[in-house]
Amino acid sequence: MGPTETERCIESLLAVFQRYAGKEGDSKTLSKKEFKTFMDTELGSFTKNQKDPGVVDRMMKKLDMNNDGQLDFSEFLNLIGGLAQACHEHMASAPAPPKRH
Amino acid sequence: MGPTETERCIESLLAVFQRYAGKEGDSKTLSKKEFKTFMDTELGSFTKNQKDPGVVDRMMKKLDMNNDGQLDFSEFLNLIGGLAQACHEHMASAPAPPKRH
Repeated sequence: MGPTETERCIESLLAVFQRYAGKEGDSKTLSKKEFKTFMDTELGSFTKNQKDPGVVDRMMKKLDMNNDGQLDFSEFLNLIGGLAQACHEHMASAPAPPKRH
Repeated sequence: MGPTETERCIESLLAVFQRYAGKEGDSKTLSKKEFKTFMDTELGSFTKNQKDPGVVDRMMKKLDMNNDGQLDFSEFLNLIGGLAQACHEHMASAPAPPKRH
């Protein structure tokens, strides 16, 4: 029996973080450059819709809780959680689709 | 171009939560019963390995930050984040695999 959807999701979080954190410098953290590449590649639909080019820098500052200029895995998880929460609230506030008769 | 791995992961978090939260009562929260079904089904490999049958109840109490006997989406995300963090730390502490010559 293969991994469940939840297990696959946790595996993805680990794999995606490792893929971008391993590009340069400390392979256990995302540098500013690695975070930008992650945002442009993995969340391009979100990033490209932002009118303000400084949004990714501000996100990095907000996520970088210990101000070391890097994002570790738990700071990265806060981003994923924040995005999922925003999607959840958006879906909850969206009007229910018309019932098909 | 289909969803990226990160987008698929966020979609999965939303879909899995909805699938179990929608089984009974308030469809926006996980009741104790729904949380137990989620743990047994989605994280069975974790749950079945626990010697103490009370572990799921204790997890629920710990996750239920506002003590309303339910887990909302943000409390659910804390579970996923905690499990991912535990896996990340386990992988970081595991000895590097021997280099194949």
